[in-house]
Amino acid sequence: MSDGLNQVDPGEGAPVFERVVLIGLGLIGSSLARALRVHNIARRIVAVDTSLDVCQAVDRLHLADETQSDAALAVRGADLVVLCVPLGAYEAIAQQIGPHLAPGAIVSDVGSVKEVATNVLVQNLPAHVQVVPGHPIAGTEHSGPEAGFAKLFEGRWCILTPPDGTDEAAVERVAEMWRRCGSMIERMDAPHHDKVLAITSHLPHLIAYTIVGTAADLAEDAKAEVIKFSASGFRDFTRIAASDPTMWRDVFLNNREATLEMLQRFTEDLTALQKAIRRGDGETLHRMFTRTRGIRRSIIDARQA
Amino acid sequence: MSDGLNQVDPGEGAPVFERVVLIGLGLIGSSLARALRVHNIARRIVAVDTSLDVCQAVDRLHLADETQSDAALAVRGADLVVLCVPLGAYEAIAQQIGPHLAPGAIVSDVGSVKEVATNVLVQNLPAHVQVVPGHPIAGTEHSGPEAGFAKLFEGRWCILTPPDGTDEAAVERVAEMWRRCGSMIERMDAPHHDKVLAITSHLPHLIAYTIVGTAADLAEDAKAEVIKFSASGFRDFTRIAASDPTMWRDVFLNNREATLEMLQRFTEDLTALQKAIRRGDGETLHRMFTRTRGIRRSIIDARQA
Repeated sequence: MSDGLNQVDPGEGAPVFERVVLIGLGLIGSSLARALRVHNIARRIVAVDTSLDVCQAVDRLHLADETQSDAALAVRGADLVVLCVPLGAYEAIAQQIGPHLAPGAIVSDVGSVKEVATNVLVQNLPAHVQVVPGHPIAGTEHSGPEAGFAKLFEGRWCILTPPDGTDEAAVERVAEMWRRCGSMIERMDAPHHDKVLAITSHLPHLIAYTIVGTAADLAEDAKAEVIKFSASGFRDFTRIAASDPTMWRDVFLNNREATLEMLQRFTEDLTALQKAIRRGDGETLHRMFTRTRGIRRSIIDARQA
Repeated sequence: MSDGLNQVDPGEGAPVFERVVLIGLGLIGSSLARALRVHNIARRIVAVDTSLDVCQAVDRLHLADETQSDAALAVRGADLVVLCVPLGAYEAIAQQIGPHLAPGAIVSDVGSVKEVATNVLVQNLPAHVQVVPGHPIAGTEHSGPEAGFAKLFEGRWCILTPPDGTDEAAVERVAEMWRRCGSMIERMDAPHHDKVLAITSHLPHLIAYTIVGTAADLAEDAKAEVIKFSASGFRDFTRIAASDPTMWRDVFLNNREATLEMLQRFTEDLTALQKAIRRGDGETLHRMFTRTRGIRRSIIDARQA
């Protein structure tokens, strides 16, 4: 059952898929490639990337059994295709691979916005394909195939948002892939996913990008001091604000409403705190700074800290 | 030269101070107590705290040679007193200890706001005392004497803001204490410190408190999901927003103008991003998300990441 590479964990049974095609070998795609290998999830791993540099890195790092630049060629005979590219590239890829997908092939993804992703895939792929969108809640601020690692998904949630009517067996196979990667599975409908992620992920990133941008606009000498003394809070935001710009552009363009709604609530709360500072209202400040501790405690208890 | 405790590093020469009194044994005070001991900086360490629980913890953890609840008694014969309490407590403490301080005694602190701190100390202490305010740029989200550790200050900056006319020898002794704790020293005037920290520390904390507060206001089931999927960005904010509420209340009450000015700039930048999202202006989003990466790189290069 093994492909002969020494990283395979022999205790996990037969591969879940025969031919898995990963399109886009960035942080998430390359981490998934590594995890598929380590946990013997795919009999054959095919890497597709339009960047020659990435393809060369994939070969150098032995991340796949086969590296292709042409997605249409690569997906022939695949039982699973996973899009690991920014959302803006989905439509073109779906149109490109659609005619070459076998009946019953599963197409999944790892994108951070699920309603638009699901619609784009369903509308641009043939009806005989099973669409099982997914979102592993894992990542780092680093990008590219060198940044990936097999343990990225361990102990993390993976949310699946299959549209109504998706074959349950297909959903279960994708779920099994993520479970073998060490993830816990949650299933929800795509619009609900997008609302939850708007507050847990999209708004935090937007705010981090903003504050780091505010600092970037300071005069050079002030900026040098910000960098020097960043350990006092600022640096935690810079980590988040170093995430891939193209991916995040596409997140905000495609989860506009939910993000803007959460942003609206945030702005109201910020205005209230601003007012309390201006008025010297220590009681309100103390109350607001106290209730946030409980949330931290809950996250630690949920082992997501 | 040693006090006989086995943690002393014998290679660092004579103690810098004879009797150091630390007032407030929270995260910073207890870390400083540990570092003073490890690096043989003080011949005698005296801990003062109004909380009986804290005093008992100090004794249990052997953090000091002497534990006192009465600051006035404790500071007699001290050559250094360091206030490690929230800024709101400075005035009362200064009035309490002033009459008992020996001529030439140095009073320092570790507070995050320096203009108000300096003024309160200078105005409430006798003229024969040397005021050398300090701010170690170090911390964690944890509080209390158990949370401290001796290495907290290693590789971190400590900013000193002595007012005009302070005895240079006194400034140098305080600087030497922090250098022995592993810190690098920067000297600036207090108003400038407060402006720099408004962007590197105070605004980031304010924003983190706000977004975690926004989440805390969600309905219970939505909140449970935020906690579950917090690894997607949100949890980094909760760490900051778990910091001590009393300390942070006092920071905002005492660095009002600089914080509100930075908040104003932040709000303008956030509004611009909001507009770009609403209009679907991907080019602006991509440009804004790209320039922030350089700041992260600079922080890594400056070894403050």
